[in-house]
Amino acid sequence: MSSTKADDPALHSEIALPVIEQLAAAMNAHQLILFTVESCTGGGIGADITDLAGSSSWYSGGMVTYSNDMKLQLGVSEASLSTYGAVSEPVAAEMAQQGLEFSKADWCVSVTGVAGPDGGSKEKPVGMVCFGWASASGVATETRYFNGGRRQVRASARLFALQSLLNLLED
Amino acid sequence: MSSTKADDPALHSEIALPVIEQLAAAMNAHQLILFTVESCTGGGIGADITDLAGSSSWYSGGMVTYSNDMKLQLGVSEASLSTYGAVSEPVAAEMAQQGLEFSKADWCVSVTGVAGPDGGSKEKPVGMVCFGWASASGVATETRYFNGGRRQVRASARLFALQSLLNLLED
Repeated sequence: MSSTKADDPALHSEIALPVIEQLAAAMNAHQLILFTVESCTGGGIGADITDLAGSSSWYSGGMVTYSNDMKLQLGVSEASLSTYGAVSEPVAAEMAQQGLEFSKADWCVSVTGVAGPDGGSKEKPVGMVCFGWASASGVATETRYFNGGRRQVRASARLFALQSLLNLLED
Repeated sequence: MSSTKADDPALHSEIALPVIEQLAAAMNAHQLILFTVESCTGGGIGADITDLAGSSSWYSGGMVTYSNDMKLQLGVSEASLSTYGAVSEPVAAEMAQQGLEFSKADWCVSVTGVAGPDGGSKEKPVGMVCFGWASASGVATETRYFNGGRRQVRASARLFALQSLLNLLED
């Protein structure tokens, strides 16, 4: 997506809506329930999902673990946080697995990243986002490096989290 | 706010931003931490707060208790849910109090309402939203009836939750 489009918050919803509608159809068809655990997106994935009326049939809720304390409270291990850092695939995996356990949902998607403008480093630059998708079959993780400012990184992360879940369901 | 303005998601952020900036200043000045418990806004309050870079100094995270199961999981009582219903001040109060206890934050704001277009009744019409604000001093609740469609109701609820918290801090 172009920088101009992605910087307009109104367009984010327009880009995400078709994905969420397809995800809703897939989740409903398989009678699945989703839970979200969000760090850098701060609740935006839940907000996007519930923009769609009727999302209560497949979305039970989520946790926003913005601080490390809240990640620990969810059940992420102190060892993983100190060894790998909050923005890492091991922590994304634990966020998704602990969210799944807490919620008893069928799927849990997690997001933890560096939205910027501060907080970036050479190893973990602004735009680096780690994702986890957990289900009874296990957990998948992935890291992406998104371009743009804070808004664009967060919008790209929201969309990628849900588009990838849709792909996993369709596999 | 007018219907035209409030139906434009881009303008919501512009309307909310000054409130969130004032709230950030007040929370930081008093070294306070906020936690959110959202039902009908689905994570949108957390997303609005974290649109602002640096919000980690006063926002630890939140829970999206979109389903009744997740409200129960947080610690809302089955008796309150069955006696008063999910959209009620007693449930909003328990959401805020349980969120405060779970997070050990200084303040917890909760939102539960009928965003529409379905789910309304004569007693609890679309646009009815109940709020709770809990701190060590106790819990305050309020009910508001917002006009407009799903988007406008949710945007109005997000703004009201944070504007009222700001007012409580300034009292």
